[in-house]
Amino acid sequence: MKWIDLRSDTVTLPGEEMRAAMANAEVGDDVYGDDPTVNRLEEIAARRLGKEAAIFVPSGTFGNQLSILTHTLRGDEVIIPASNHIIVHEAGASAVIAGVQMRTLDCDDGMPSVDRILKAIRGEDLHYPRTGLICLENAHSSGRVLPMEYMKEVYSIARERAIPVHLDGARIFNAAVSLGIDAREIASKADSVMFCLSKGLGAPIGSMLVGTKDFIARARKGRKIMGGAMRQAGIIAAAGIIAIEKMIDRLGEDHENARYLAKKLGEIEGVEIMRDRLDINMVFFKLDSGRPKAIVEELHRQGIKINPPEGDEWRLVTNLDVSRSDLETFIDRFAKAIRYR
Amino acid sequence: MKWIDLRSDTVTLPGEEMRAAMANAEVGDDVYGDDPTVNRLEEIAARRLGKEAAIFVPSGTFGNQLSILTHTLRGDEVIIPASNHIIVHEAGASAVIAGVQMRTLDCDDGMPSVDRILKAIRGEDLHYPRTGLICLENAHSSGRVLPMEYMKEVYSIARERAIPVHLDGARIFNAAVSLGIDAREIASKADSVMFCLSKGLGAPIGSMLVGTKDFIARARKGRKIMGGAMRQAGIIAAAGIIAIEKMIDRLGEDHENARYLAKKLGEIEGVEIMRDRLDINMVFFKLDSGRPKAIVEELHRQGIKINPPEGDEWRLVTNLDVSRSDLETFIDRFAKAIRYR
Amino acid sequence: MKWIDLRSDTVTLPGEEMRAAMANAEVGDDVYGDDPTVNRLEEIAARRLGKEAAIFVPSGTFGNQLSILTHTLRGDEVIIPASNHIIVHEAGASAVIAGVQMRTLDCDDGMPSVDRILKAIRGEDLHYPRTGLICLENAHSSGRVLPMEYMKEVYSIARERAIPVHLDGARIFNAAVSLGIDAREIASKADSVMFCLSKGLGAPIGSMLVGTKDFIARARKGRKIMGGAMRQAGIIAAAGIIAIEKMIDRLGEDHENARYLAKKLGEIEGVEIMRDRLDINMVFFKLDSGRPKAIVEELHRQGIKINPPEGDEWRLVTNLDVSRSDLETFIDRFAKAIRYR
Amino acid sequence: MKWIDLRSDTVTLPGEEMRAAMANAEVGDDVYGDDPTVNRLEEIAARRLGKEAAIFVPSGTFGNQLSILTHTLRGDEVIIPASNHIIVHEAGASAVIAGVQMRTLDCDDGMPSVDRILKAIRGEDLHYPRTGLICLENAHSSGRVLPMEYMKEVYSIARERAIPVHLDGARIFNAAVSLGIDAREIASKADSVMFCLSKGLGAPIGSMLVGTKDFIARARKGRKIMGGAMRQAGIIAAAGIIAIEKMIDRLGEDHENARYLAKKLGEIEGVEIMRDRLDINMVFFKLDSGRPKAIVEELHRQGIKINPPEGDEWRLVTNLDVSRSDLETFIDRFAKAIRYR
Repeated sequence: MKWIDLRSDTVTLPGEEMRAAMANAEVGDDVYGDDPTVNRLEEIAARRLGKEAAIFVPSGTFGNQLSILTHTLRGDEVIIPASNHIIVHEAGASAVIAGVQMRTLDCDDGMPSVDRILKAIRGEDLHYPRTGLICLENAHSSGRVLPMEYMKEVYSIARERAIPVHLDGARIFNAAVSLGIDAREIASKADSVMFCLSKGLGAPIGSMLVGTKDFIARARKGRKIMGGAMRQAGIIAAAGIIAIEKMIDRLGEDHENARYLAKKLGEIEGVEIMRDRLDINMVFFKLDSGRPKAIVEELHRQGIKINPPEGDEWRLVTNLDVSRSDLETFIDRFAKAIRYR
Repeated sequence: MKWIDLRSDTVTLPGEEMRAAMANAEVGDDVYGDDPTVNRLEEIAARRLGKEAAIFVPSGTFGNQLSILTHTLRGDEVIIPASNHIIVHEAGASAVIAGVQMRTLDCDDGMPSVDRILKAIRGEDLHYPRTGLICLENAHSSGRVLPMEYMKEVYSIARERAIPVHLDGARIFNAAVSLGIDAREIASKADSVMFCLSKGLGAPIGSMLVGTKDFIARARKGRKIMGGAMRQAGIIAAAGIIAIEKMIDRLGEDHENARYLAKKLGEIEGVEIMRDRLDINMVFFKLDSGRPKAIVEELHRQGIKINPPEGDEWRLVTNLDVSRSDLETFIDRFAKAIRYR
Repeated sequence: MKWIDLRSDTVTLPGEEMRAAMANAEVGDDVYGDDPTVNRLEEIAARRLGKEAAIFVPSGTFGNQLSILTHTLRGDEVIIPASNHIIVHEAGASAVIAGVQMRTLDCDDGMPSVDRILKAIRGEDLHYPRTGLICLENAHSSGRVLPMEYMKEVYSIARERAIPVHLDGARIFNAAVSLGIDAREIASKADSVMFCLSKGLGAPIGSMLVGTKDFIARARKGRKIMGGAMRQAGIIAAAGIIAIEKMIDRLGEDHENARYLAKKLGEIEGVEIMRDRLDINMVFFKLDSGRPKAIVEELHRQGIKINPPEGDEWRLVTNLDVSRSDLETFIDRFAKAIRYR
Repeated sequence: MKWIDLRSDTVTLPGEEMRAAMANAEVGDDVYGDDPTVNRLEEIAARRLGKEAAIFVPSGTFGNQLSILTHTLRGDEVIIPASNHIIVHEAGASAVIAGVQMRTLDCDDGMPSVDRILKAIRGEDLHYPRTGLICLENAHSSGRVLPMEYMKEVYSIARERAIPVHLDGARIFNAAVSLGIDAREIASKADSVMFCLSKGLGAPIGSMLVGTKDFIARARKGRKIMGGAMRQAGIIAAAGIIAIEKMIDRLGEDHENARYLAKKLGEIEGVEIMRDRLDINMVFFKLDSGRPKAIVEELHRQGIKINPPEGDEWRLVTNLDVSRSDLETFIDRFAKAIRYR
């Protein structure tokens, strides 16, 4: 049975081309810098985002935390929207690994006003930690894309104060597609960017951290500390190269599918779509009643995987393994599942 | 020259009685548990707040950070209003020492709604840090006192989830006086409380951390790690005993002085008093214009010490070394200083 | 050109069978526990070492550090030979991630006397960190195998004191082959074991951490914190399964090759073989003179990769990509390279 | 009853002059830099050790750990004899607070050979932590004084490699008296020195950390993080000034007393004196038999406090509260106590 999996875009399976590339990848020991495929992936990734250098890491969380470790000194403070992945879904890693204080700004869409950020930046005082980093996320996991105007403003106030900006760009290409611009333009408003090969781009494993040569050189030591230096990583890097070279252009399809899904779901009685958060491949909605667990289980019996709601909010994520006709199937079964709840 | 010092209540000087007590204190090596005066202070402090045990520490920051270190495991998350002393004025210590992630709730008065706290508490999930502690501050450094109803509610939801609550009670006796209740009542809504001997109570050095016997026993190891175990600490503990036994009752005077000061300042043109934050010995206000640095310097030349504003907000703190007539002098000179600005 | 690479057994390239397995692996999102190949690898790994459970991690360093993080509380002390990989080659990670104090025992072969370990174990005292873990390494990176008698004794004194033992078993199967016993027997003298799929066993990426069910469950949270949770990791896990099922038996060949290499090298004038450290697939030796850099470069020109000496000690590592005839070639060229030095 | 207390020189009680000085000290809020007595103590301490600046801290452990925090970056490695106070008696603080890896060199007298230190210093390599600090202790807690020749050599190899040296000089003045030189000379072979006011010098509380202006400025931020910034600290600083100005010269008396005690104890049958460790005010010895607990308790009943042995080694410490006639009393009672054991 082929599952219809709308839980995340992390669940996509590598296709034939990626599998072939992995099977045939030229590899070496990357800890010795000897893996030609990893070296090529790092070069491609850096170029694709307009940065000097890149480093391959096992996961998005790894890349974000490595960036925080590399940018900061212990005891620094990091300004970050409370709704960002780094706060919500990375298990509190920053305090463990980097030893930095997170100054979480309450804000659902990842865009606290520039004034609030300014107010959170510390001056010189014995009682204050140093503001060591500002983190943004684009596209934001709320389904919103941060407009360039916002990113420019934040980057500008940060630069004036010599505070680096890290961008959690797990879905930076979704943001670029949504904004109709090149991802380089987004990346130019941050000092470092992490992006995932394993989400919408469909590679099985791995993320990239990009930045200046010096930053990436220091990150290599940090990657060693965190245990992320791998051996013949070219196997998985081979899929990453295809992800970057061939999978970005098709992300628009996922976005269209999400909007289609939102439109159709919105026509079902009792479903309230969060219409202001339809920028990428995600659909958020609420149900006016119903038992979430029963709905999830009923759909599972019918070959559909979705996550239960967080709080009262459900999230569906379109991805390359979900076709338009899969969506029709889903909508149909979902409408029934909530009817008999 | 006798200065009029309104910068803080930390600036008070020990009086004759305290100095005599220190000069004559019976002491021993407290690291060996041999200091009778420290032992007595710890007993008195615990009893005064209705807790089982207490430990003497060098500062309020030390007591708060020791409490966080003792309550949590590395990687835990701590829910705390962003305006609390622990976030604003303790140099980012929690990430360095305890290795915990601070989930700062934006909120000026230290009282985020119980709903917001509930929303911030984590469930069980591989991606989530454990919610290891909730921190409150009463009286809050904004000049507000947290009402008992609020403390009860927070403590109740925390207990239901087996999450400990630490109270930064640097000025818990100011809060108690303001609420017209015993400090024990406030302390009963927290698992641990830190309070300062060296603020309104006038002792030169030291703070107390109180809690259960087991908690304090573990805190003794943490105090060693943090380098806060002192030798013949009875010298300063002797002043602490007087602080607790004789100085609490007079705090009401500081509060009255603050209200008097607020009233008089409010009559000066161009001064806007923050009238909703007059619960303790602090007065916050704004000026409609003027050069803060010049005002501070002019007053300094006239024997008056005040801090420059943080942002656009000035703070004055009444204390036992500032009499009503000192206030008259201050008001007079301040009115002139801002006139010629 | 086919290189002869004697730098390490980490440099081996995956063979046809592994590549095919990876190309055809059934995968899923391992963060959701959905990857059947990873699940199978974890089951096989646990069974192979006689433990309850296993977790797949990106590298040996990752597995060791994750184990330390999981066994200890911050502030604990870890007793460990100073010559172990965890101290020498893991970039100081333990203090950064786990926040534990390493009590390094000076000792070249990884076998400090049991008396020295006993002396290093702490009693109860406010001034002492808790002894939270003892770490051993077998086979040891010095080329020695720890005898079972030694492991039993250490494990016995540790158990009596309820101190867990972690075994860095990056090359545990080399140790087992050398001792002529099952790896389970070695693993039974430790609470947790890390072993590498990517060294002598020839898989491109990954290591396993094994232990009790409870330990591994807690390690899953730690792996998330350290950023080592990967998505469709079944791709590389497929190679890991082959590594465990088919590659262990051939390790004896590498050992024989190492002894052959040692014998032949020892016949060259000016070469002093460390004959007491020929337990596994490593040969250590010294040269009575010569310029190391020139030798390494000359051999490189001739298609041979070796590492420069650490201090004055050279290390060669046999592995599955180096045949007996490659060794002949190496010996021949090496003898010439050092002659013209 | 006046106790005869030979447990440590930390147990001394402040005399009349110190008590009077504390009672009359001119004080201010040291967090604002306003305490004239603290300022004077810091100036005197810096000058006394020939350094640019000094900072007052609550304890010796605090000073050592603050120094490590200030010298290093997280992840650095610190080379240190395993028998030093920082390793043995500071509760594993360095890994918790500074996040550094301790490379403990086994060595009983605090003087590992310069060759061993050289071997422990790391080169540049991705796998290595940076060697961030070397720590020595003089006088060493084993009762030995490190000769100047040794300190010079270590400092010289450290400087060549730009590695800072911290000296735990808790008893630096004992070392200076023993070597017959000025403490400045010892301090000149380290970048930072911590010394205690509260050991042989008889002040009730506090230690000093000295170094360059820049180092001490950064240490002020670290002291804030660690919670060691105190308010009207002039009270105890007043005793510290007397400690430095008047108590150093009399340390020779403690040393003579220790040698006298060693001589007399050595004449008792069954007592073996560690004669190579009689450099300062400490006497170490072993008993050929006997029940330590019973001996300690019997002496306690007779007004004498001594510590039980660590391992099989007893330690006695002479100090300003123990006169020659107290020693006679002790020797007499001790000889009896061990006889009836």
